[in-house]
Amino acid sequence: MQAASRKILGIDPGLRVTGFGVIVQTGSQISYLASGTIKTPDADLAERLGVILRGVREVIQTYQPDLAAIEKVFVNVNPQSTLLLGQARGAALCALVDANLPVTEYTALQLKQATVGYGRATKEQMQSMVQRLLKLPTPPGRDAADALAAAICHVHSSSMQGAVGGLAPSLVAKGYRVRKGRLVQS
Amino acid sequence: MQAASRKILGIDPGLRVTGFGVIVQTGSQISYLASGTIKTPDADLAERLGVILRGVREVIQTYQPDLAAIEKVFVNVNPQSTLLLGQARGAALCALVDANLPVTEYTALQLKQATVGYGRATKEQMQSMVQRLLKLPTPPGRDAADALAAAICHVHSSSMQGAVGGLAPSLVAKGYRVRKGRLVQS
Repeated sequence: MQAASRKILGIDPGLRVTGFGVIVQTGSQISYLASGTIKTPDADLAERLGVILRGVREVIQTYQPDLAAIEKVFVNVNPQSTLLLGQARGAALCALVDANLPVTEYTALQLKQATVGYGRATKEQMQSMVQRLLKLPTPPGRDAADALAAAICHVHSSSMQGAVGGLAPSLVAKGYRVRKGRLVQS
Repeated sequence: MQAASRKILGIDPGLRVTGFGVIVQTGSQISYLASGTIKTPDADLAERLGVILRGVREVIQTYQPDLAAIEKVFVNVNPQSTLLLGQARGAALCALVDANLPVTEYTALQLKQATVGYGRATKEQMQSMVQRLLKLPTPPGRDAADALAAAICHVHSSSMQGAVGGLAPSLVAKGYRVRKGRLVQS
């Protein structure tokens, strides 16, 4: 019997750079399909939001994901920055809901726990683990890595029913296990 | 010679309630076309943003405005509220830019100065002045009044070249003048 596969789009929203990553889940296996960034020019806010909206829309049209996972953004100490980031995230979410994609939100902590295995992982550890999990020749860029981590996190979260020790079957199948709360390769 | 007319859509963004108002400017005259609110249900964020996106899009399709004016939102002391408001505003802006409408942003201070004539006007004074300027039988609701004020503010700002004492021709024509920095009816 062939396991059903589904495509998951991960998004790491930002006003200047929005990362995206698409992975394919087939049964307990995950594989890389695409990733990249949408960069906005130095323009007025409306125009920049338009670039994000159309960029995410183009990614959806190109890769036809079945569902989406998006990172819950960090609330900045500067209210103006928070407001700008909120608007950028709103634009990315609009592209997703406008395409009728089911959207799940994950915190940065959840992304780190799902990929690296603990919440205080560095950016570099995230990039390195995303590279290994998806068998990439080089580590993805930071924004793309966060987006791919969101997609991986979704597979993990929705596979929890059948997980071993809280670990996703895809990770178990690759020989990973949890030791002292951290993800290690056996 | 018939003066060219244009339709201006004003938006007052909010996660729970987004106000909209459409006015028609013909030469130095302004008139009311429509106003109302888009209310979101108690649902997850993505769904609520979808309601705002589709609601503003429907307003655009129904009234076919030529350009849009949107209120710059208040930055809340609570970062989470600011982030939510930012996302709602991002959704409204997405509907505008997605329809290729030129968008201008105005602060609450500018809206008050353009309608009531001074920056510390109350909500009630705004509603009352919007009612008078647009010859409405009753004052519009708060959210709709702010949206209509954004549209009026745009007429004012783009008419400044031919203004008398900083006052828009549309206001001068209606017998309004500025006295001690406030707008009064002669």
